[in-house]
Amino acid sequence: MAAGKTRAAHPMKAPLIQAPASQMMSLLEELAAFSIPGTGVTRLLYSPEWSRAQLFLQERMAGLGLEVKVDAVGNVYGRLSGDNPDDPAIVTGSHVDTVVNGGKYDGAYGIAAAITALHYLQQTFGKPKRTLEAVSFCEEEGSRFPLTFWGSGNVTGLYNGSEADAHADAEGVTLTAAMAECSLGSLNPVLNARREDIGAFVELHIEQGIILEKTDTQIGVVQAIVGQRRFAVTVSGAANHAGTTPMLMRQDALAGTAEMLLAMERLALEAGEPLVATSGRLEVLPNTPNVIPGEVQFTLDIRHSEEEELDSFCSHITSVFKEVAEGRGLAIEISPRLSASPAPMDTRLTGMLESICRNQGRTYRAMVSGAGHDAQLFAPQCPTAMIFVPSRAGISHSPEEYSSPEELAAGLDVLTELLYELAYK
Amino acid sequence: MAAGKTRAAHPMKAPLIQAPASQMMSLLEELAAFSIPGTGVTRLLYSPEWSRAQLFLQERMAGLGLEVKVDAVGNVYGRLSGDNPDDPAIVTGSHVDTVVNGGKYDGAYGIAAAITALHYLQQTFGKPKRTLEAVSFCEEEGSRFPLTFWGSGNVTGLYNGSEADAHADAEGVTLTAAMAECSLGSLNPVLNARREDIGAFVELHIEQGIILEKTDTQIGVVQAIVGQRRFAVTVSGAANHAGTTPMLMRQDALAGTAEMLLAMERLALEAGEPLVATSGRLEVLPNTPNVIPGEVQFTLDIRHSEEEELDSFCSHITSVFKEVAEGRGLAIEISPRLSASPAPMDTRLTGMLESICRNQGRTYRAMVSGAGHDAQLFAPQCPTAMIFVPSRAGISHSPEEYSSPEELAAGLDVLTELLYELAYK
Repeated sequence: MAAGKTRAAHPMKAPLIQAPASQMMSLLEELAAFSIPGTGVTRLLYSPEWSRAQLFLQERMAGLGLEVKVDAVGNVYGRLSGDNPDDPAIVTGSHVDTVVNGGKYDGAYGIAAAITALHYLQQTFGKPKRTLEAVSFCEEEGSRFPLTFWGSGNVTGLYNGSEADAHADAEGVTLTAAMAECSLGSLNPVLNARREDIGAFVELHIEQGIILEKTDTQIGVVQAIVGQRRFAVTVSGAANHAGTTPMLMRQDALAGTAEMLLAMERLALEAGEPLVATSGRLEVLPNTPNVIPGEVQFTLDIRHSEEEELDSFCSHITSVFKEVAEGRGLAIEISPRLSASPAPMDTRLTGMLESICRNQGRTYRAMVSGAGHDAQLFAPQCPTAMIFVPSRAGISHSPEEYSSPEELAAGLDVLTELLYELAYK
Repeated sequence: MAAGKTRAAHPMKAPLIQAPASQMMSLLEELAAFSIPGTGVTRLLYSPEWSRAQLFLQERMAGLGLEVKVDAVGNVYGRLSGDNPDDPAIVTGSHVDTVVNGGKYDGAYGIAAAITALHYLQQTFGKPKRTLEAVSFCEEEGSRFPLTFWGSGNVTGLYNGSEADAHADAEGVTLTAAMAECSLGSLNPVLNARREDIGAFVELHIEQGIILEKTDTQIGVVQAIVGQRRFAVTVSGAANHAGTTPMLMRQDALAGTAEMLLAMERLALEAGEPLVATSGRLEVLPNTPNVIPGEVQFTLDIRHSEEEELDSFCSHITSVFKEVAEGRGLAIEISPRLSASPAPMDTRLTGMLESICRNQGRTYRAMVSGAGHDAQLFAPQCPTAMIFVPSRAGISHSPEEYSSPEELAAGLDVLTELLYELAYK
């Protein structure tokens, strides 16, 4: 019986899912140990800690009865073959790398839960009808090399591996050299990372935001991952003496920037959720207390789940900034730096997730992911879903990152039931 | 006949003043050569270039018939004794030090003009009734050591020399060691720098602002040197994810700062001249494009010629900033960093300067000095005056600093006539 049909016609109570959360928690703790010394977890792509983590995962997957594969860029898969091994696989997981001084949960949680769920399903229900795979992507954060999504990007065709020569880390080591130097364990360099045999992708992740906590909700059912535009802005005026230049004779680049940023904030509030607009980085020149700022350079980061709304806000902001500059005799240059389209999740899968939450008696809410995730690369290629659990105080990318064992267990159960519905029914 | 009486009762045309501007221009060029190699002029306190410049000035003063003295901190005087050598002296001059990569005129102009004027007056009118002195102060800019006005400050009692052990330059050399190491020429360490025998102080200086140029005016008659307040401000919010934190859940320290700076600009414009308010230095933490700024540190520099206006503006701004912070859930800390009182110039001297400008057929305007000058230390102790000439585009502290020979000559003539009025009548 097809899962969709069951759900629509006779909502049949699924068997009670009781995935062993303790196994997942142990895996999380074990993964956290693969870090350079220091605060939090630091596990950068192709570093010794990273290699040991991916090797550990291979061993653990094999020990739990999964068939292990490693591709050319170091993505690690654990496979539970279904009735017809040539059918598309249902893949779930996340990335194994961290930012510098990151937390235990970002990425790692999705991997630990994937392995735990697959092992539990096999132990409880035996061989699935459809193939299931747990994946530990090699990289997503962009913390060592100046590119992101190196793992899922090679799987989905965003990259084809040829970029490895052109990108180097802060010490000048190219991706190619880093791959060659690291001990990838059972890495199989002939296994091309690109896959066209993935039938669905599901990612379980901490929210990295404060919405679930603030609304006291257990599960976030992601409807879309926002699109993003980044700009670099330079505002140029005249660096004059702070004492001898009357207010009316100034071309103060910082005062002009203040007007722009305040206007952007007001317009973003007017646009309403899920639009967010941020200036996170700002530099003043010459940056001297008694000199009127002659130049300010700053970044813009603007996100929305609808492409049209995103574009319309960006072009509005651009014209407002130009008006402010003109009115003050300032020059302005606005350069696009990044443009990523919104990634809508699969509505059948999000519907299933909502049913599962109801069946399990969990509080849940439909929400937009304001952060980027591996799932956004799969969304244009196959049915894709994302599940969020609360992040304490919305903190992530920090040793303070925390979700309680109960919160993590709830996400595991929702994921496990979805995989059951997709692979066993 | 007293100068005041003459001026008030029978405005008598002074003899035609024709000070030799070419001699002053040569002195300026010669002084500019005492610099470390590189762009512009760099002549830091007690450096070899500085020592050579002060030695050169002593030789030149002596050659022109002035009686040379060097005090304990390296201020150089050239004296033209009057009828009664015990009467207070009329002193004119400025500072010989420069900023790093400074210009030819800041400070040096006042010294070159002082020497030229005294020599011209002696050659033309003989021995003065009242003693005249040209001075080359050792330091004013604060470019090598973390204190300013080391020259005039030791003369007026702001310092007493005891500070020399406590202040070191960027290389850790104390003022004491720097004084001991430099070749101060005919330095007389027993001649205490403190003087109580100065009857009037007159400083000729480039404006370092754009008012004279913008209003096409030859001479600025300074009414007061502004008082100044500096503050260091820290605004603290919460550094959250730029994508996952809705606009309404933010504590964005940069957006709050933008609102404060814009309010300050508006209030400063409302207050009107001569109030100026500047934020010249600003740092964002963590300063990352995709993180909402958690903290912003910035400076305030606020100036006005009236103490009461200055205090009232500062306390108003402080309360506005606190309101903005409170309304946004931000913490704010505002720490005073500097407080200097306004220094009004002597009204008899400014009146004489205005008469002289009219007599010489020069355009002039009463103005406030927004920059600090040696004259501000003399103002509380003796009748003090300052004369400004235009600065091209208001630029100073830069190799681009420029005033034309004609503009410089006009200032020289006004200074010379004032000295004539004060010392010969």
